[in-house]
Amino acid sequence: MNLNFKIMSLNFCFIGAGNLATHLSKAFKNRGFEISQVYSRTELSAKELAATLSVNYVTSADEIDSNADIFFVALKDSAVDEVLSQINFGNKLVVHCSGSLPLSKLEKYSENIGVFYPLQTFSKSRDVNFKEIPVFIESNSAKNVEVLLQIAHEISDSVSIIDSDRRKTLHISAVFACNFVNYFYSVAADILKSKDIPFDVLKPLIRETAEKVQEMHPEKAQTGPAVRFDESIISAHLNELNEFPDYLKLYNSISKSIFEHYKK
Amino acid sequence: MNLNFKIMSLNFCFIGAGNLATHLSKAFKNRGFEISQVYSRTELSAKELAATLSVNYVTSADEIDSNADIFFVALKDSAVDEVLSQINFGNKLVVHCSGSLPLSKLEKYSENIGVFYPLQTFSKSRDVNFKEIPVFIESNSAKNVEVLLQIAHEISDSVSIIDSDRRKTLHISAVFACNFVNYFYSVAADILKSKDIPFDVLKPLIRETAEKVQEMHPEKAQTGPAVRFDESIISAHLNELNEFPDYLKLYNSISKSIFEHYKK
Repeated sequence: MNLNFKIMSLNFCFIGAGNLATHLSKAFKNRGFEISQVYSRTELSAKELAATLSVNYVTSADEIDSNADIFFVALKDSAVDEVLSQINFGNKLVVHCSGSLPLSKLEKYSENIGVFYPLQTFSKSRDVNFKEIPVFIESNSAKNVEVLLQIAHEISDSVSIIDSDRRKTLHISAVFACNFVNYFYSVAADILKSKDIPFDVLKPLIRETAEKVQEMHPEKAQTGPAVRFDESIISAHLNELNEFPDYLKLYNSISKSIFEHYKK
Repeated sequence: MNLNFKIMSLNFCFIGAGNLATHLSKAFKNRGFEISQVYSRTELSAKELAATLSVNYVTSADEIDSNADIFFVALKDSAVDEVLSQINFGNKLVVHCSGSLPLSKLEKYSENIGVFYPLQTFSKSRDVNFKEIPVFIESNSAKNVEVLLQIAHEISDSVSIIDSDRRKTLHISAVFACNFVNYFYSVAADILKSKDIPFDVLKPLIRETAEKVQEMHPEKAQTGPAVRFDESIISAHLNELNEFPDYLKLYNSISKSIFEHYKK
């Protein structure tokens, strides 16, 4: 009880005000945690998130208030060093939220470091139920792991400990299962648009494709011309895609990959 | 009322007993239509579907009973001619269920021909709600269009008329939005397996990715390293994919395609 009380009294500074920072800080705030400050170089983002959370914001890294208990770093990976090198964290707990960066990236900034990686696709305009989002934790000490686990359990029903190497693998798999998948929704929309067919017609198919693999392994759920080796359809489709040379190349290489995969 | 009565008294023969034939014939049967017979060269499939529908089955095309009112052809595209050329349809209505085959494919088999294309991914082991599945109709006469529309409206809330050319475009877009998407779920599962991470961790992400585009256009929903031009992540991922040369190639070409698409 006492530990829980201590956990809930911690206050967080958010370094970054993008999609992930927005959803994560809101989930913390809604659970009753105190957010002390928001930083972003992009004033509009900083201002917007700060207003949502009713806290102050800064746009220069050297104005970040070092009194926060935990610093959540939710920046583009390539911006992390540039921003963090301007901040004196003392030995406060500094936590990044990236799928790809190793924990060791933070070693030069504090003795207390960690990772808090929520595996989800976030867009500012769309609400998510954080309870259902798997959160992956890593830290350099048992005590910090314990703190991060407790914080994570307050906002998510699915919390695991994972090391940097496996988290990177997780992130790569998520690029396929989410970013590339969404791009293909976009490709489909583009192809339909060329014949004035509304994207809406695909929505039940998209939903069912995702729902199927909640129950079946995707290997078993595979349908379509490539897995049936239906060359006449494949060549007719390639023919039709002449006006989209980039999509034609993708269609060809993915069909081949499916074919090779399933003929095993 | 009278027309509806006539519609409901029609009986259907199913040529094919695969995933699509199974779900479509069951939807008709559940709605009260009479299925007169099932044909498949694969005895196991024919027997299984016939048992589900409580009808007889045949495995030779020359045993198909030509007394049915409508023949639904749900075969692999490349098998259509081989099977249909063995059947005397008189001038009964012959309807195929393919996304890719043109209506004209059926011209040599009957004077009354049509297309009945439900846009969904079907697996025998998974139930679907046919009411939500968009059905696309085409025929060579206004009367046949009317019959097919009425039948389609009995089992689906979303029925449209579409010509062969646009239906092919629809099918290509569905290959991207479903078949290729599912393959990427499978790729993600494979990558996770190499580090003993269960596929389950991706399920909320997969679901949210599909739910997002029910409301937002996929172009707006795009997230991830490729759209952020985050080269350090992309090269780290490519490095990690060395043990999966095929997936590495896909990762590379799709990231490039996303990059080109969004930099416009």
